[in-house]
Amino acid sequence: MREIYLDNSATTRCFPQAAELMSRIYLEDYGNPSSMHHKGVQAEKHIREARKILSGILRVKPDNLIFTSCGTEGDNLAIIGCAMAGKRSGMHLVTTPIEHPAVLETMRFLESRGFEVTVLPVDREGLVDPADVSAAVREDTILVSVMHTNNEIGTVQPVAEIGEAIKKKNPRTLFHVDAVQGFGKARIYPARMKIDLLTVSGHKIHGPKGVGFLYVGDKVKIQNILFGGGQQKGLRSGTENVAGTAGMALAAKMLYDSFDEDTERLYSLREDFISRITKIPEVSVNGRRGREGAPHIISVTVPGVRAEVLLHALEDKGVYVSAGSACASNRPHVSSTLSAIGLGKDGLDSTVRISMSVMTTKEDMEEAAAAMEELIPFLRRYTRH
Amino acid sequence: MREIYLDNSATTRCFPQAAELMSRIYLEDYGNPSSMHHKGVQAEKHIREARKILSGILRVKPDNLIFTSCGTEGDNLAIIGCAMAGKRSGMHLVTTPIEHPAVLETMRFLESRGFEVTVLPVDREGLVDPADVSAAVREDTILVSVMHTNNEIGTVQPVAEIGEAIKKKNPRTLFHVDAVQGFGKARIYPARMKIDLLTVSGHKIHGPKGVGFLYVGDKVKIQNILFGGGQQKGLRSGTENVAGTAGMALAAKMLYDSFDEDTERLYSLREDFISRITKIPEVSVNGRRGREGAPHIISVTVPGVRAEVLLHALEDKGVYVSAGSACASNRPHVSSTLSAIGLGKDGLDSTVRISMSVMTTKEDMEEAAAAMEELIPFLRRYTRH
Repeated sequence: MREIYLDNSATTRCFPQAAELMSRIYLEDYGNPSSMHHKGVQAEKHIREARKILSGILRVKPDNLIFTSCGTEGDNLAIIGCAMAGKRSGMHLVTTPIEHPAVLETMRFLESRGFEVTVLPVDREGLVDPADVSAAVREDTILVSVMHTNNEIGTVQPVAEIGEAIKKKNPRTLFHVDAVQGFGKARIYPARMKIDLLTVSGHKIHGPKGVGFLYVGDKVKIQNILFGGGQQKGLRSGTENVAGTAGMALAAKMLYDSFDEDTERLYSLREDFISRITKIPEVSVNGRRGREGAPHIISVTVPGVRAEVLLHALEDKGVYVSAGSACASNRPHVSSTLSAIGLGKDGLDSTVRISMSVMTTKEDMEEAAAAMEELIPFLRRYTRH
Repeated sequence: MREIYLDNSATTRCFPQAAELMSRIYLEDYGNPSSMHHKGVQAEKHIREARKILSGILRVKPDNLIFTSCGTEGDNLAIIGCAMAGKRSGMHLVTTPIEHPAVLETMRFLESRGFEVTVLPVDREGLVDPADVSAAVREDTILVSVMHTNNEIGTVQPVAEIGEAIKKKNPRTLFHVDAVQGFGKARIYPARMKIDLLTVSGHKIHGPKGVGFLYVGDKVKIQNILFGGGQQKGLRSGTENVAGTAGMALAAKMLYDSFDEDTERLYSLREDFISRITKIPEVSVNGRRGREGAPHIISVTVPGVRAEVLLHALEDKGVYVSAGSACASNRPHVSSTLSAIGLGKDGLDSTVRISMSVMTTKEDMEEAAAAMEELIPFLRRYTRH
C-alpha cells in the first residue's frame, strides 16, 4: 500500500542528502570537535559550516547559535536560563495558553520556584493581540515567550508586532519565540523582529531527531542549564552532535534554497484541500485560512467522528495524520490549544491534524481528501461517538 | 597517509552497521514514537528494541533506562535530579577529584545552591578507597558519585566494593556511577554492584554522538531536569532520538557479542605497547597496569616534551592521540585527574593519552610505538620545554 505521510508537524522524513552527509560523518569525519588533531579539526569544520548556514538564514552572527539536543531543550534553556540569569531584576514571565508543553511545563516549573506567570488570551483563531502583550509586560517582566507557528492549528503569530510591543513597554524584557513549527516554513529574522531567543528543532525540517538550536542575541544574559566540559562557550556542555548538527543545517539550507516555490505550492495544496473537505457536511477548519496561517498545517474538526477512529480508518488506507497534538507523549490528554480557541468537548474529541511538508505531493492531498470524503459519512453512520 | 586513530576515549568511529541502521531509520522508519499510526509504531519499536538490548547487557529491566542526549546530560540528570528529589532527607553529596567535568561542575552548581560536597582522596594510581567512601557517607548523604573508568588514565574503580560500603553505612544513600568510559569495556551489573544510577554515552562505544542513556534503579527518587511533552514517563521530555538510540544499542550489542576476545586482545596490545615505550628513557605510564586498568587507555608521561608538541608531531605521522583530557572543550586547562594523582607541573604538561578501541589493530599500535620511539628523542633534542 502506498504511504501518504501527512504528520509532518510531528516529525519529518530526513532529506536523503542529509542522511548521506550524516553517514559520511559517522564513518569518516567522526572526530571530537574538542580534539586538537586533524580528526577534531574535521569535525569542528562541520560545526562551523552548520553555524554559517543557519545564522545566514536568520541573518544573525554564527556565534549567536547554541546547538541543543531538541526543541524541548532549546525552550528549557531559553526560559530557565534567562529566568535564572535575570531573577534579580524581576520574576515575572508572560506566555500564551497555546504554547508547546516544552514552554508551558517549563513555565509551571518556574512558578513552583516562585516566579509569576501571566498567560495571555488568544482569539478563536489562536491569535495573540500585541496590545494584550503590551498590557501584560511590567517593570519586573524578564521574559515573554510566544510561539511563531502553532503546532496544532498552524496560526502564525504577529511576531514582529509583539516584539515591538514588548520593547516599547520595557526594553529590558526578553522576547523568546518557539519557532519549531515556523522555521523552514517562514522567513524569520530575529534582529528585525526584536526576537532575543529563538528555538528550532532539526527533525521538523527534514533533519534528524536529537538535535536543534537556540538563537541567543548578543546582549542576552543567560545561564547554562547543563554543567560539564564547557563546550559552546559554557552554554551547552557535552560533545557536540556533529552529524546531527550538519544534517540539520543541510536540511535547512535545502528548504530555504527553494523557499518561495515550495511555499506557493503548499499554500495552494492547502487551499484546495480545505475547499474540498469543508464541502463535507459540518466539517470545519480551525485557525487562520490563506496566507495568515502556516502553509503546512490543517486542523480539521469532524463532528460526529472521534479523532482516533478517523485516524485509524485513514491509517488503514495508508494515510497518516494525527489526533490532537502529536509532538507530545502518547498519553491521552486534552489539547490546550484547541481548548484555548474555544472548541467544546465534542470538537476536542473530533479534531485531526493534517500536516504537509515539501515532500507532500498534489496526489497525496487528493488521495487524502478522497479518503476523508469516503470515510467520514461511513464512520458517522456506523460508529458511536 | 594512513590514519592511526588512537583517541577513542575522546570519541569513536561509528560501526558501519550502526550507521546503516540509522540511515534506514532516517529515510524509512522516520516516524515520531508518540504518533498513534503505523509510522509512530515503527519508530517506537526501535526504541523498545534498544531498551531490550541495553537493559539485557546490564541485566536490568527495560523500563530502568532513560535515553538522554549525551553523557553530560545523563550525569546532570542523575545528580541534579536526585539532589532535588532528595533534598528533604539531606543535602550532602560525595564525589572524587578525578570525575569528568559533567560530574564535578554539576557538583559545583549544587554547592552554589546550598548543598555540601565532600571530595574523596585518590591514591597515586587514581584509586578510591572504599573505606574512605564509608567514612564520608553520613546520615544526610543523599548521593555518592564515583566514575567506573577514569577517562584520562584508565583506572577502574572497585565499584562493587564502593557500592557495598555506601549501603552498609547508609542504605538510603544513592550510588551514581559515570560509566561513559567503562561501558563497552567492562561487564557492569548495577544490581549486583549496588549501583542506583549509571551514565552511558553512545559515541564512546562506536555509536553516534548526541545520544546516551541513564540507568535508574526501581526505587530511586529522581526529578526531571527538562520540562515538556512528558516522554519517557516524564523523566526526559523531547521527541526521542530514534536513530541515535537504535544506533547506540546496536553498537553496544556488537561490543558485548565479542567482548571476551576483544578484551584479551586489547589488554595484550596495551601491555606490548607499554613495555615498548617505557624503554624510552624516563617515559612512564600513569594509572594501573595489567588487568586492574582499563584495556583501552594508556596515559604516558614524557618528561622533556610538551604534550601538545608531541601530539602534533604524531599527527604529522597520521597518529592521533590526545593531550590531557580530551572530552572537554578545547580551552587549555589543567587536568584535575593528573593533578589528583600527584603529577607535578612538568608531568601535567608532558602527558599524552593513547586510547584504543576494538577497531585498533596490532599494526596501529606498533606504528604508534615506533613513531614515539623516533619522535621523543628528536623532540627532546630540538624543542625547548
